[in-house]
Formats: sequence, C-alpha cells, structure tokens
Amino acid sequence: MRKNEKNFKIIRSPLALQRLSKKILAQGKSIGLVPTMGALHKGHISLVKKSAKSNDVTIVSVFVNPVQFGANEDFAKYPRRLQTDAKLCAESGADIIFAPSSKDMYPAPLQTYVRSAIENMYCGAYRPGHFTGVLSVVAKLFNIALPSNAYFGEKDFQQLHVIRKMAYDLNFPVKVIGAKTIREKSGLAMSSRNEYMSCEERVAASSIYAGMQEAKKMYKQGVNSVAKLKKIISEKIEEAGGKIQYIEMANKNDLVPVKTKISKAAVILLACYFGKTRLIDCDFLYYPR
Amino acid sequence: MRKNEKNFKIIRSPLALQRLSKKILAQGKSIGLVPTMGALHKGHISLVKKSAKSNDVTIVSVFVNPVQFGANEDFAKYPRRLQTDAKLCAESGADIIFAPSSKDMYPAPLQTYVRSAIENMYCGAYRPGHFTGVLSVVAKLFNIALPSNAYFGEKDFQQLHVIRKMAYDLNFPVKVIGAKTIREKSGLAMSSRNEYMSCEERVAASSIYAGMQEAKKMYKQGVNSVAKLKKIISEKIEEAGGKIQYIEMANKNDLVPVKTKISKAAVILLACYFGKTRLIDCDFLYYPR
Repeated sequence: MRKNEKNFKIIRSPLALQRLSKKILAQGKSIGLVPTMGALHKGHISLVKKSAKSNDVTIVSVFVNPVQFGANEDFAKYPRRLQTDAKLCAESGADIIFAPSSKDMYPAPLQTYVRSAIENMYCGAYRPGHFTGVLSVVAKLFNIALPSNAYFGEKDFQQLHVIRKMAYDLNFPVKVIGAKTIREKSGLAMSSRNEYMSCEERVAASSIYAGMQEAKKMYKQGVNSVAKLKKIISEKIEEAGGKIQYIEMANKNDLVPVKTKISKAAVILLACYFGKTRLIDCDFLYYPR
Repeated sequence: MRKNEKNFKIIRSPLALQRLSKKILAQGKSIGLVPTMGALHKGHISLVKKSAKSNDVTIVSVFVNPVQFGANEDFAKYPRRLQTDAKLCAESGADIIFAPSSKDMYPAPLQTYVRSAIENMYCGAYRPGHFTGVLSVVAKLFNIALPSNAYFGEKDFQQLHVIRKMAYDLNFPVKVIGAKTIREKSGLAMSSRNEYMSCEERVAASSIYAGMQEAKKMYKQGVNSVAKLKKIISEKIEEAGGKIQYIEMANKNDLVPVKTKISKAAVILLACYFGKTRLIDCDFLYYPR
C-alpha cells in the first residue's frame, strides 16, 4: 500500500475543500489539481502522477459538469464510477478526490460566466456554450481547490489553450500545465468516450491518428499546404467510415487559424464521428521541420 | 505618525504583489482589499478604515481601468493623483497601494472576460461592456491581491451586486463587503466625478438625494406604486435642472426589476446628468416599512 492510500479522502463540499486548501497553503505547501469528469483512463492517471511528483498535495476533481454539455449531448450517458476512480487516484499518488454534486457546484442559477474570445471557433463552433461552461467550472475549481499547479491533457488542445489564457488574462495564481496525449496501441487517443464505441468502431477510429501521422510525414517532406494536409487526414478517416466534423490548422501559440500555408509551429485540430461517438484529437506540426 | 505610514509601500507589478500576498497568507494573516480608481474621497477612506479594522494587511488598488470605460466616456479626464491618494491611504491604516499601469494589467489583448447575466440592465443598458470590464478587472485584482475580504461602496449598487454574485458563482475565497454611501452635507453622494461639476451644478445635484428622501417618505406613508415613487424623484431632479438617464426600482436581494408595486425590500437605482456630469445614486425602501 502506498502512503496515500491510507489518508486518502473523498470530499463533496466545495466549502470544506476550500477551507482545507487554505490550511494547506497556510502551511506553505503546494497543491496540484487534476480536473476531470471521472471515468478515469491512463491519460488522466498520467496527469495525477505528474502532479503527485511536483506538489505536496494532489487533488483530483471528479465532476461531470452539466453546464458544458449541450441539450443534445451525452451528459446523461457519460460514464460515472467514483469508487473505481477513487481507487485509481489513490494508487497513483493523489491525496484527495473532490466529487461534488451538481447542486453543490450550482446551488443557485449561475449568473456569472467566464467567456473566451475564441469560444465559437473549432470545437466551440459545434458546441455552443461549451467553453463558457468549461472556463466557468475551471474558474470555480481553481477558487475551491486553490492549486499552485493544474494539469490538463493536450488532446483537447483548444480547452488547454483557453484555460491557459484564462489563467494568464485573469491573473489566477495557478500554473496551467499541459501533458502529452496518451494513446492506445492502435494510436487512438485515450478518452472516456471510447467506451461508447463497438470494437469495430474502435479499430476504425485509429484512422484518426494514422491520418495525422501521414499528414505529419508529408509535411516533413515539404508539403505545407493546409488544404493538402487536411485532405490527407480526412481521406484516411473517411475511408475507415468516420464522418469529419471539422479539421483545422492553427498556430500552436495563439490558435489563430492557418488558412493556406504552414509557416510556423502549428496544431492540427479535429473532431469526427465514428458511429454516434464524437471524438476529438490533435497533433503538432513543428517549425522549422 | 501611525504605524502604517512607516512601512507603507506602493507596488506597481501584479506579480510582485501576488508573491507578497502569497507570503502574507502563508503566515496565516488576512488581507483586505479596497479596489478603487483613485482620486480618493471620504467614501473610499471609510472603506480603507473598515478594512484596516478587520484585516492584518490592507491593500488599496488604484487603477483607472480602461476596459470598463466606453469610447465616449471620461477615461482620459478621470482625475489621477497617486501621491495624494497614497498619503490618504497611509493615514487611514492601509499598508500597500497597488498602482499598476494599463500595460501591467493588460500586457496582451484580453481574450477572457467575466460576464454577468444582468450586465445589460440598469447602468449596463447605457454603458455597454462596462460591467464586463468591471468584473474582469475585479477578478484580476482578487487573483493578484488574494484578499480574504474586499470592500465596495453601496452607491454603485449594481456593481456591488454583480461583484458579490461573481464571488459566489465562481467560488472566490473572498468575502465581498458593501459599505454605506458617504454623502456631502447637502446629501450629494461622494464621487470622484463630483469634481467635474461647477458649484451651481453641485448644489443642484443635491436634488438627487432630496428626491429619494421624498420618495422614501411617501413610501413610508403608504405609497407603493413604482410609477408614483419614480415620478417624485424625477420631478425633484428635473426641477433642479438635472436630466434623468434612468430611475428603476429593483428587489434588493436579486436586482430583479419591480414593475408595479413594492412588496419586499427594494432598491432605487438611478443615473442622471447635471451639465455634462453623469451621476449615479441609490437608496433603499425597506419592507415591512
């Protein structure tokens, strides 16, 4: 048994956690926060381990945030399994799981929102209100858990970007740390939503990574046309039976769209469907190549 | 010389203040924050004294926030006199003045905003973007100064309300404390903008308070019609040469407009012009009367 498993705590009340976090900070200790919606996979666990390595106390929040889901999205069916999650967190070095109810987080209708100027681009164009829901709940989690460091996966790169920019713009005393996307052997990015897929769909969905790898290869060989690189990826996904929602290239630093040619470090952002499951992924085109 | 005058500090850098505030908190001390735009008057000073009484360290921020001014408003002419302000703060028990430049506060274009659902009501209807600018800068100030308690005047009651709601909605670890409006002998609410007025206008502007007092008297005598109470106030102001921008009645607790009859604790909210000077004020209609 690791040391953490002994004193591991599940906390439900925002106020109780905030009080505890204040005490921890008043002792001069550092807090790492890993915000999640639960149904933890290896991607999340890599974040927990990263936090446990660099902080005195690691808090994992498990909260399926209703405010970031659209009316026709998968809020109701999103997987929930707190006990399994808690065990995984304890084994990975976390000290506290924060698992509030919706009522705990939204005791009254929200009248204050944190919004990003790029909330309607990329994924945001297809999920109205999503990033407002994300930023508002992350602001809440930052204020409740009072972390020195907060950890997010790179897979949802737009999310990582708007959160990092929020912390910068609003001077949160929090360092936002991105971590590499963890993939299955097939290349499929780990996601709690992968569970929605049949075996066949999961195999087919590995075409996302294959497409991005192919595009990266062509880019390295000198192809810098955005249209061509997008075509390489979309063909690969569509051949496997996927349906593209969007593929875009953007500057890695500021997420400004790249329209014609890659001329500095860029990120491929995409969303597509395999069956009814919406998947997102991203990869980087470095510069100079 | 009071003890504070010796160690009194002016800090310009957000990062330097944030570091200092973290140290103060790590010593188990409490911080009070009084956010201002400078040109301090007795209203501000009452907030500083209130903070100094209840907190180990009092920080007064002095920042004329460009983001909360409209294009045709008085950003350029708003009075600025930091040395006088600093002296007043030190004498009143403050420990630190935080006086950043616009560049310090907005080193890059802001892409993240804090917005209120009632940002387009009352004053917000006439000052598009104003409350977004206010909430965003107050969120920044909370994150930089890390106060346990923050103090605001009641005169701008909508501002106090949206800030209090922001702290609640986003779980800021800050208690938002409102303080009574301080008035000149004539009844005119203290405001840095009173300096814009001629002596004649200042005398005439005392009709705002007189009108509200008259309405409160009539309310106590049984008049609960919003239309009648508004008329009493507007007539008084207009007789004195003022120009009404708006007069509204709202529930004191949630700022929901009261359309016809006062039936619980309400607040009178108004804005009007004397000459070119826009003034705001508020007063309360208690219930039961």
